[in-house]
Amino acid sequence: MRYELYYWPTIQGRGEYVRLALEDAGADYVDVARRSTGKMMSLMNGRRSPTPPFAPPFLKAGKFVIGQTANILLYLGSKHGLAPKAEAGRLWAHQLQLTVADFVVEVHDTHHPLGPTLYYEDQRPAAKRRTDEFWSERVSKFLGYFEQLIKQSKGPYLNGRRVCYVDLSVFQLVDGLRYAFPNRMERFEGEVPRVLALRDRVAERPNIKAYLASERRIPFNEDGIFRHYKALDR
Amino acid sequence: MRYELYYWPTIQGRGEYVRLALEDAGADYVDVARRSTGKMMSLMNGRRSPTPPFAPPFLKAGKFVIGQTANILLYLGSKHGLAPKAEAGRLWAHQLQLTVADFVVEVHDTHHPLGPTLYYEDQRPAAKRRTDEFWSERVSKFLGYFEQLIKQSKGPYLNGRRVCYVDLSVFQLVDGLRYAFPNRMERFEGEVPRVLALRDRVAERPNIKAYLASERRIPFNEDGIFRHYKALDR
Repeated sequence: MRYELYYWPTIQGRGEYVRLALEDAGADYVDVARRSTGKMMSLMNGRRSPTPPFAPPFLKAGKFVIGQTANILLYLGSKHGLAPKAEAGRLWAHQLQLTVADFVVEVHDTHHPLGPTLYYEDQRPAAKRRTDEFWSERVSKFLGYFEQLIKQSKGPYLNGRRVCYVDLSVFQLVDGLRYAFPNRMERFEGEVPRVLALRDRVAERPNIKAYLASERRIPFNEDGIFRHYKALDR
Repeated sequence: MRYELYYWPTIQGRGEYVRLALEDAGADYVDVARRSTGKMMSLMNGRRSPTPPFAPPFLKAGKFVIGQTANILLYLGSKHGLAPKAEAGRLWAHQLQLTVADFVVEVHDTHHPLGPTLYYEDQRPAAKRRTDEFWSERVSKFLGYFEQLIKQSKGPYLNGRRVCYVDLSVFQLVDGLRYAFPNRMERFEGEVPRVLALRDRVAERPNIKAYLASERRIPFNEDGIFRHYKALDR
């Protein structure tokens, strides 16, 4: 079965967490909207489906249409050995992914504190204040949590020796923060050595390495979640 | 087995979505932190557990400690008949709950656009702008989506005739918006008659009705997610 991934074609965004899992698993998939967004829009707005997704990303897997990033990963994790098999482990991995998702919302809020439908340019002073709060309070709380988990599991991954889809997402968080806030991140990195080691380990996984070097990996840019604005990276 | 729910004792907050499911299911549970928060804090900060939750709410179910609201509901839904049994239906219900969770974040952002660790009083002008965006763009998008789903399922619930935990959460969204923004909500309600009918149907479910009349239901207040500030409810 070939999966169909539906996501905005010009950004990494939330789709990237799914792409990383599909790539690491070596799954057969097509990133549909990279060719044209028509089918994606019609699936979303279609009144014919009883289960229309609220927003991308969503994954077509045979008859299933699965929306919400963490939900897609819950599904893929169990099909491709990217999560523990037992119920407790499966729920634990999903819980961590939802914590990643919470962090991603806060990353987005750094440049869009006044709302997702306004332009960054119309909310710069608020973005500065939000970004200061994000870096003084939130980054260390979230990444420090993951650091502690790796310490307890003895690493290199969050659950110990077996990779899971959450590890791939943590890789994305580190690279995203490095792109968006190179100065702030450089000052911070010393606090989370295990998270950085996990990031490097993920980047060296053969399928991920090949993906990152390919054209399938869309570069970071200022339409995605992680955006580099000099004013926010003192 | 008696469940142990851990959540902040003075607010509905995110714990309320779990409380509603436990109550509707008639599950045996204790809302631990209503007596004392000591045990909750030690479970969160404890370095002994290999799976410490990032934040409340979390649920102790025998040996399991399950965190993240939607994850807890995923678990409870399958144990108590509050979600479809088949994989596709289970993922669909969870997808909707994650969409509820996204909306809840945006509700919280109306009074905390500059960050969760600052006081509302220190971000009033930004809160006004964010709230305007929320009501002009977001409420109709989210609640309109649920309205459309009920229309397609023929109601009264999101999936048709069988209630699921997401319906209980949609009830909470309506009552929360009515509490926080009575004027704005009154003007809006005509757009989502099916959502309101679903809300009434949930409120009449015997276990929910008994719960709402009990002391176990904490009143809405200005420490929770849905806060009533006159300045934000023109």
